[in-house]
Order: sequence, then C-alpha cells, then structure tokens
Amino acid sequence: MTAYDPNNIFAKILRGEMPATKVYEDDVALAFMDIMPRADGHVLVIPKAPARNLMDIDPGVLSALIQRVQKVAKAAVAGMGAEGASIQQFNESAGGQIVFHIHFHILPRWTGVPLRPPGQMGDKAAIAAHAEMIKAALG
Amino acid sequence: MTAYDPNNIFAKILRGEMPATKVYEDDVALAFMDIMPRADGHVLVIPKAPARNLMDIDPGVLSALIQRVQKVAKAAVAGMGAEGASIQQFNESAGGQIVFHIHFHILPRWTGVPLRPPGQMGDKAAIAAHAEMIKAALG
Repeated sequence: MTAYDPNNIFAKILRGEMPATKVYEDDVALAFMDIMPRADGHVLVIPKAPARNLMDIDPGVLSALIQRVQKVAKAAVAGMGAEGASIQQFNESAGGQIVFHIHFHILPRWTGVPLRPPGQMGDKAAIAAHAEMIKAALG
Repeated sequence: MTAYDPNNIFAKILRGEMPATKVYEDDVALAFMDIMPRADGHVLVIPKAPARNLMDIDPGVLSALIQRVQKVAKAAVAGMGAEGASIQQFNESAGGQIVFHIHFHILPRWTGVPLRPPGQMGDKAAIAAHAEMIKAALG
C-alpha cells in the first residue's frame, strides 16, 4: 500500500492550511461538513493522527475514533431531525476513497430520500446552517 | 427508537438457531458471509452483545467491535486479492438497515467492478469458497 501523504487535503485542514466547517473537535478527532454533501447534514470524522485508511490505522486510534463517529452521528440524526443514518468508510481508490486520510462519512437519512450523486458541490449557506444544527445537538 | 428485538436473524445466528458461514469469532464479535453478497467476499461483522445500531451500542463494545472489523477487512482484502474495500453500516430503515442487530458490511473492491444491486441471493458454493480464502488470510 502507498504510504501516507502529509499533503492530502484533510491533513491540510488539520494543520489549518485549508478551511473547513467544523462541528466537533477534541484531542483524537475532527468532524467537519462535507463540501459535496450526498445528504443534508453530511459530516466527515477524521483522526488527528495520520493514517491512510482502515488498512494502516493504529487499532487504538481507531477504537477512539469510532466513539467520536458515534457521538457525531447521534448528534447529526438528532440535530437534523433525521430518521436514520448511513455510515460509509472507503479504502483505496477501488474502494471509493478520494482523500487518503482515513475518514468516516455520516449521512443523515430520511425515508424515501435517496443519496445525491457524488461529486456535486453543496450550497455553502445550507451547509453552514446544517453545521449549526449538528453543533447545537452536540451541546 | 424501537427497542432491541432478540428474535432478529443475527441474534438467531449468534444463538446457533440459524446457520451462517462463519469466518471469524471471538468473545466480542462474529464475522460471517452475507448471503446476498454485493461484492465477492462480502462479510458482515456483528457484536455478540445485543445492540440495535450505532445509536444504542455501548461505546466500549463499539471500540472493541471496530478492531474486529479492521482485522476481518484486512483479511478480506488480502484473502480475496482485492484492491480496496468499502465499509458500510446502516442505521434504521431510513438509513438502509434491514436486520436490527448492528452490523458492519465489509465489501472487497476491485477497480471498475461496481457493487451488485442489493437483495440478490448469492451462489452458495462461491460464498463458501470466498469464506475459505478469507479464513486462510486470518491465519
């Protein structure tokens, strides 16, 4: 497997070199809004420690990370008034991965509302509003 | 949220009341082949402790569970000779959940090979062969 590239876009977000609409941050993880949301309230959760994907992440970091995924997913469902959530995590290009810093997608879901196609930029004001709803639910 | 139903099909598999093609088992988790594989080598990983989904699972159980997901995913990629993997975890019907005992889908992936549509029964002999390949990689 290819080594971790410290110039990937999520590493730049972690270093403050790129902007992001953050909803949660602690010593282990950062959660921020996907700029190409496939559902309203689409959030990404990443570890602060470098890891390419599920193949190379330290198991202890992964265990801590998934607790943040759970915390943010519960807040995304509550804050967005969703009926459920789909979690996705892609590994390598063949697995759907585009940015090579491990990330979990949290997709709030509503009955009868399909995911939007990937790769479409979202409305900035709507994303900002959804971030506020999720942050409010995080307390 | 609806309470955990101890008569869901995965609870029956855990109790030995329903068959499953198992690839991994320890005190925390059970991994077995999906009978409707959306990719060759499609494996499910479930906790032995009852939980409906990501909304109610105990965080400590979740942390232990995700380490088993990682272990089995690495073996599925290696054993199947895959180029990547997609991980999916669905919550509530709106989120795509059909069986209400939390489970992580591990989908080995190859470039240019889309996932098969959901809900199609797989070939039993092929599933058994893929299970052996994954078990061999688990060592």
